[in-house]
This record gives sequence, C-alpha cells and structure tokens, in this order.
Amino acid sequence: MPADEFDIIARYFAPLATAAGARGLIDDAAVLEASGRLVVTADAIVEGVHFLPADPIDTVAKKALRVNLSDLAAKGARPIGVVLSLIWPDHRPSAQIADFARGLGEDLAFYDVALLGGDTTSTPGPLTVAITAFGAPLGPRVPARADASVGEQLWVTGYIGEAYLGLMLPTSEPAILGAAPEDQIDVLAVQARERYRVPQPPVAFAAAIAEFACASIDVSDGLIADAEKIAAASGAAIRIDADAVPLLGGAAFVDKHGAAGLMRLLSGGDDYQALFTAKPESRGQIIAAARALEVNVALIGDVAEGAGVRVVDARGQAIPVPASGHRHKLGR
Amino acid sequence: MPADEFDIIARYFAPLATAAGARGLIDDAAVLEASGRLVVTADAIVEGVHFLPADPIDTVAKKALRVNLSDLAAKGARPIGVVLSLIWPDHRPSAQIADFARGLGEDLAFYDVALLGGDTTSTPGPLTVAITAFGAPLGPRVPARADASVGEQLWVTGYIGEAYLGLMLPTSEPAILGAAPEDQIDVLAVQARERYRVPQPPVAFAAAIAEFACASIDVSDGLIADAEKIAAASGAAIRIDADAVPLLGGAAFVDKHGAAGLMRLLSGGDDYQALFTAKPESRGQIIAAARALEVNVALIGDVAEGAGVRVVDARGQAIPVPASGHRHKLGR
Repeated sequence: MPADEFDIIARYFAPLATAAGARGLIDDAAVLEASGRLVVTADAIVEGVHFLPADPIDTVAKKALRVNLSDLAAKGARPIGVVLSLIWPDHRPSAQIADFARGLGEDLAFYDVALLGGDTTSTPGPLTVAITAFGAPLGPRVPARADASVGEQLWVTGYIGEAYLGLMLPTSEPAILGAAPEDQIDVLAVQARERYRVPQPPVAFAAAIAEFACASIDVSDGLIADAEKIAAASGAAIRIDADAVPLLGGAAFVDKHGAAGLMRLLSGGDDYQALFTAKPESRGQIIAAARALEVNVALIGDVAEGAGVRVVDARGQAIPVPASGHRHKLGR
Repeated sequence: MPADEFDIIARYFAPLATAAGARGLIDDAAVLEASGRLVVTADAIVEGVHFLPADPIDTVAKKALRVNLSDLAAKGARPIGVVLSLIWPDHRPSAQIADFARGLGEDLAFYDVALLGGDTTSTPGPLTVAITAFGAPLGPRVPARADASVGEQLWVTGYIGEAYLGLMLPTSEPAILGAAPEDQIDVLAVQARERYRVPQPPVAFAAAIAEFACASIDVSDGLIADAEKIAAASGAAIRIDADAVPLLGGAAFVDKHGAAGLMRLLSGGDDYQALFTAKPESRGQIIAAARALEVNVALIGDVAEGAGVRVVDARGQAIPVPASGHRHKLGR
C-alpha cells in the first residue's frame, strides 16, 4: 500500500532527527550552527549502479551514508550532520521504508551524526539516495588531491578489492574467490558481499589523516583510478607496490588469477577507504596512530617525478595497468 | 556519444565553481567558511514527477536550483551556495549536459550563489537533480512553520496557480485557461508554461520575511496544503479569502470554471512562493517593502482559533476544500 510522505517522515525519520536545528523535520529547512570551516560533500547512490536491487534495504541506507562519511574521513574531517533526499520508486513496497530508516538510524547513532533534514519524493525509476554530509576539519589543513609532493609515501586504509569481489559474487561462482577449501570460500564470500553492501570508511582514522596526510582522496572508483587523480592534480607520478596492497579476502583471488586478477581488484572500486600521501618522517606516527585506533593502514608506494600511476611487483618490474581504469560515462 | 564524467565536470561545471572553497570541483569535498547559523535545505526534482521529459534542459537546471532558493527565501535567508547531485539517464544525450550547465550558470550568476561541489552519476531511470542549498539568515529569527499565532495576518508572495495551469497545458487545450480571446490565451499559455518550468521564488523578499514573518513556509504542494502545514504545526486555524489570492493568469480560468477551478489552482502546487503570517501592525511595512523591492505580496487571510484551513468567498461563506490536498504517496 502506498504510504503518505508526511506520515513516513513523521513516523520513521523525525525520531532520528534529534538535533535542535533539524526542527523535528517538520520545517522546510534546518538551521546548522557553524563556527569556522565546514567540509561539505555530496554523493548519491542509485539502484543498479551503486547497489543491487536485491540488497537488503537497511544496507542501502548505510551505504548511502557511508560513501559520504568516506569523503569526510579522507579530508580529515569529523562528520557532524547530513541531509537526505530519498527518491523512492513507485514499484517498491513502502513497507521497506521502515527498514531503511532503521538502518540509517543505526548508522547515525554509531557514527554520532545528526540527521538535519532533507526530502522524500517518488520516482518511476530506480531507488536513489542522495546525501549531503557536513564535517568539521580535525586539523588546520583539509588535505586536497593536489597536495602530493615528490618523495612522500603513499598509504591506504583498510583493505582493497573485497567490495569488487562482493559485487561479482551474485553473477559468479564463489570459487572465483580462489582455491581455498569450500568452508573458507563461504566465509570469504559472505564477507566480500558484506563489504560491497556496507563499506567500512576509516572514520576513526580521520584525525590522523588531518594530522599527517599531505594529499588525500577516498578510494571509490578503484585504487588505481583514484591514485591517478592524486597524480594528475599534484603533477607527479604515483608508484604502487603490488605486494604491499592489503587484500585480505582478495589474496586467494590473486593466487588463483595472477596479475590480471590483482589488476581487477586494484581497479574494481567501491572500496571507500582513504588513500593519502605523507612525509617519510611521519611513518612511525602513522603506524602508531593506526595501532592505537585499531585501523589497518598500509604503506603501499610513493610519489615520484613524472606523471600517472605505475604498479610494480616485488622485483620492481612494472605490471601493465589496464587502459581505462574506472571512467564513468554519462548519457548516450 | 556517452561523455566522460571527469571531462564533463572539468568542461562544464568547474567554470561555474569559482568560490575558493569549491576547489575547482576537483576534490572530494568543498570547504565552506561559515560563521554562525546556516540555513540548510535539500530538494530533489525527478523527470516525470517535478518536470516534464520534454522541458528544455536549461529550465530543468533552473527549476532544480529555484525550488531550493524558494525554501531559503521562505526562511528569510540569503542563498550562499549549493552542492549538486546530477543523476543523468543512460538514454539521454550527453550533449544536453552543456545546456544544463549553461542554465545553471545563468541562475547561479543571477542569484549570486556559489556552486560548491557535488557529484554526477548515471542512472537507468529518469533524470534526477538533487540540490542542497545553504543560506545565511537575514534576521535574528528563522521563521518556522510552527510560529503562527491567532490574530496574525496571512500573506503570500507572487501569484498562485499559474504553474498548475502550465503543467496541464501539454495535455489540455489552451482554451481551458478561460474565455479570453485567442491571442490573450496564447500569452497566458506561454506564461503559465514558463512559470511551471522556471519558478520565480521571492528571493528578493527574503529580508522582509526575516524581519516581519512569524510563521513561514514555501508553497510547493499547493496553497491549501501548505497552509494546512502552518495550521497543524502552529495549533491554529488558517482562513483564506478566496478573492484575495493573487491569480494573474489564473483569473480567466476561475471565470470559466468557477469555485471548482479556483480550488484546483489553490491545490495545484509548484508555485514556489512564500506563505507567511505577520502581526497586523506590520502590514504597512510589509506593503512598503514589497513596493520597494517590486515584489507582489498579497494579504490573503488570517490565523484564527481552531484547526485546519477554511477558504471563504466574498460573503464569508466557506467554499468546500477538496479532502486530500496534495499528499505525496511513496511506494506501493
């Protein structure tokens, strides 16, 4: 049964909007008390593009939020609040909205982020969730893509390639994950699928990024493609040590598929981790911060003279990088 | 031919993002310098729901912006900046993006608003434009829906019902507009269609709203439906003098269709004007401000004891209000 927009907001979303400036979501706008700089980011996710139609609806809400928290973390900012545009398909049961709101509420509470406002509308098309997120910079600098310099080291948080495996699973056999025994494959498959649906942005590490990062970007389009953006914006080359990239569940996939499999993981996207450069003298402090915060952070390369991204193996030999990376196309 | 997302941003949108904090749109996030309160609003428009597939694409950009500027104006705030999520259909020619950006750029310049950031993504569904807008309050208060009190007068900016006529035109004969001579009908039809496509939010009147409004809301779901929101949030009744509502092009429609036609105009939506209450002693100053700013503002009713909205004719007789108003439904 179609649900009334105002009832939906009052019943499911207003209880999440506890900040005074949200005005209980009954007003046209929110009032945000701001002092100094705000980091602002907007990312929308679309059914069939950024998530799968059958993904549990509470994970869709979490992904919509977390892809934005990932941008804030990569900029060294603490999330403060979000506004949500929920664009709900005419053909999708309105009963799912309660689960969407529950998932969103769990994550808002987990990350201590305020729901400040937004709107809901219907669409004849796919479910689309557009969130704008506000963050407070945790240091004097908000690291840009363009801030890398030759001689800096390249770091990445979390693990790369698992979300890509999770995306492939519904249309592939779990055995593509690698040659591990069946029960191990099942564990990897469950974990990879979960990583695709619910990213794990390095929110806890944002303060360290604010303190130590020179250039920084969130890895959403694939490690290589996003490293290329730092290289292009900074006018430098990025070298990535293939063996140093933390793969976790993807390691068995690389054992099975070799260099081509590795390139798929490094180009797959949906990682929502932070890729940043830092001065070599920060190395010890970065490792100490990662340990203290229980965040996985790996040193995976460096910034060199030149342009573009070079992926090298243990012997320093270049591994061919596929031409296009993850270039989004628009329209026809 | 599909266009590359990064080329699109660099070619068409980066030139619009001239504020330093926008970082030329090459970063993941913008940095907004804020001091004190920010008014934040988010409104998305969807092809086939809020605009028509054949509407000129530059007007779609302007509508997406202006429905947000309407919210800011109704809250007595000056627009500062926006972030844009452009969700572009796979089947729509990418060549139209240049015209979309041109229309957006014209309006950003006209209203002196900064494009701070955003994202672009593809969709298998309809064109969807989600904008989040930031404004600076122009007075110490940001008027809410809930701030109306018994004895206050009810005001509306601009004209009501023209956008509704414009929406009906493609599927109706221009003669529905009224009994006027043919050439007059053509003028009305062109104007009504333009009002539907390109709203005229009362941005110039925002300072007066900040100074004089008690409760305020933007009229997007229809005059009656939005008056009901003030009534419900404020715990009072709203009386609307039917004859006082400024109709302009809709007057001939009411001549032809009578009270039922009037109710269609007052329930049609898409007006994007401000509906506000003010103390009777502010009346002279409101009229003077409207004159000085060349904004049409009309006194159309008042706030009374009770609940709900009552529309009355010249003799004070209630005109029956259709039951539902404009209640949006979500899902199935």
